[in-house]
Amino acid sequence: MSTETAFKPAHADVERVVRTSFGKQGFLGNIGAWLVDVKPGHVIIELPFSAKVTQQQGLFHGAAIGAIGDSAGGYAALTLMPEHSEVVSIEYKINFVRPAKGQMLRAEGHVLRAGKSVSVSRVDVFAIDQGPTGETKTELVAVLQATFMRVDTKPKATV
Amino acid sequence: MSTETAFKPAHADVERVVRTSFGKQGFLGNIGAWLVDVKPGHVIIELPFSAKVTQQQGLFHGAAIGAIGDSAGGYAALTLMPEHSEVVSIEYKINFVRPAKGQMLRAEGHVLRAGKSVSVSRVDVFAIDQGPTGETKTELVAVLQATFMRVDTKPKATV
Amino acid sequence: MSTETAFKPAHADVERVVRTSFGKQGFLGNIGAWLVDVKPGHVIIELPFSAKVTQQQGLFHGAAIGAIGDSAGGYAALTLMPEHSEVVSIEYKINFVRPAKGQMLRAEGHVLRAGKSVSVSRVDVFAIDQGPTGETKTELVAVLQATFMRVDTKPKATV
Amino acid sequence: MSTETAFKPAHADVERVVRTSFGKQGFLGNIGAWLVDVKPGHVIIELPFSAKVTQQQGLFHGAAIGAIGDSAGGYAALTLMPEHSEVVSIEYKINFVRPAKGQMLRAEGHVLRAGKSVSVSRVDVFAIDQGPTGETKTELVAVLQATFMRVDTKPKATV
Repeated sequence: MSTETAFKPAHADVERVVRTSFGKQGFLGNIGAWLVDVKPGHVIIELPFSAKVTQQQGLFHGAAIGAIGDSAGGYAALTLMPEHSEVVSIEYKINFVRPAKGQMLRAEGHVLRAGKSVSVSRVDVFAIDQGPTGETKTELVAVLQATFMRVDTKPKATV
Repeated sequence: MSTETAFKPAHADVERVVRTSFGKQGFLGNIGAWLVDVKPGHVIIELPFSAKVTQQQGLFHGAAIGAIGDSAGGYAALTLMPEHSEVVSIEYKINFVRPAKGQMLRAEGHVLRAGKSVSVSRVDVFAIDQGPTGETKTELVAVLQATFMRVDTKPKATV
Repeated sequence: MSTETAFKPAHADVERVVRTSFGKQGFLGNIGAWLVDVKPGHVIIELPFSAKVTQQQGLFHGAAIGAIGDSAGGYAALTLMPEHSEVVSIEYKINFVRPAKGQMLRAEGHVLRAGKSVSVSRVDVFAIDQGPTGETKTELVAVLQATFMRVDTKPKATV
Repeated sequence: MSTETAFKPAHADVERVVRTSFGKQGFLGNIGAWLVDVKPGHVIIELPFSAKVTQQQGLFHGAAIGAIGDSAGGYAALTLMPEHSEVVSIEYKINFVRPAKGQMLRAEGHVLRAGKSVSVSRVDVFAIDQGPTGETKTELVAVLQATFMRVDTKPKATV
């Protein structure tokens, strides 16, 4: 059976809210991560290979995998929250299932539960590697389950 | 992208090994759980509603959800281990995403990584509820990520 | 550094609220679990060895360990919530660190964060085993990190 | 009851092995993390505040918290492994319990189970903040449970 749900965006401006929040996250931008896709309940983030995010041997560092995984799950949750929301990570759990080797890391987050205050996302992280003869290999390297909380950012009315 | 992999059974007798191990688990049998499907890398366990596995209000108890979820993941891992193996849970993480209401609980485990000693499974747990007019509603109620260790059960050679 | 915090009870009647909720949980009572200690931010639950909670070989079943661990963490969180609260598990993560062998299982839950709607607890589960000459051995067998949500149970005013 | 165990170092050169491995981890060094303390079964890592590891508002970024937490747990496990070992993260689970505000982040990892191939650590991460009048406030900001695998690095004998 499928865990995929068709979600409606919470409001018309969901993509702008996500891209604005992402833009303010210095850390993700600094390491070169970018938002590939923002749909209701689904967000994809990619991170190209660079010296900033690897350890010895040309593998992506676990902290980089966790960072884009957590963010893909959190922004997927944010797409289903009402206007004037920000998203905060309560917790996540990550399993590293294969060495993360490749030119690109790709985190696909989708929402499993969109609650009023608490949301749950699942994230798959893939490494995309191009072989010497040009063929592309995509391998699952990590999986996350993560919980997020909505924070209200509505400006208070002044009297 | 998909996390589904086509697995080959580790040996010809995989289903018997799983069913034998399951049969020895008093706890699962006592609460009424049964193995619905055993395929390489995939195992499905169902648990019918009964007073033994519920809390007040007719919901399945979290401990019952965890028990069949953990087992579906572990037995999925066992299908890919060589003969003379037993499987032990190292850890699992469970998110409860909806109230578990229904006549039947169904845990679908599939393997994400089949290592020599350490394996990782993902499990979806659904509640199946039949409405008054006979229509069936299937809802995702919990998700697990779990890690398992292979234990060698090969009888030692005697000289 | 210590993670222990001195908590104040949320109201005068905290122990009664916890014991009442525990009493309604058929599953825990049925397997023989009982509340040993209820203090602000700290709850201890014990579970004696019996055929109901073991697997083959006289070890406690993982589902029993998870059940009293989750409950010790949740009730610890409930002691710090205002009157008219019930507690619901959002998620937990359990590591099984040693075989759970003994006459008694003991779960000690304490709160790490008591939020308005979301709380986090840590739980240590010990097996207590009495040797043939009467000496007692207490071993850590599992650890949990768990997240809980407050649910308001206040009766609505009728006009 | 306590989860603290007195461990013996696996060999005489444990601290050198940990410091060498840490030194090769470009990522951790680049963000300014350093090994404060290496004892059998216990490792402390600190990370000073800087623009590299923060998000907007002067808080430490979750990815930085996860990175030093995961490393403190893994290196604690490495201190109890035999010579010619390297440590690899299987999985970790992190709960963010308070905003991570301060001049310094401090991760204290200690081993709960030191297995032949699989080890389990628990990690507390504190933020250390110095107030305007010089007093120091230390707050728990995150907790981890993490599982690690030993990898043999022994050079193969050549015949």
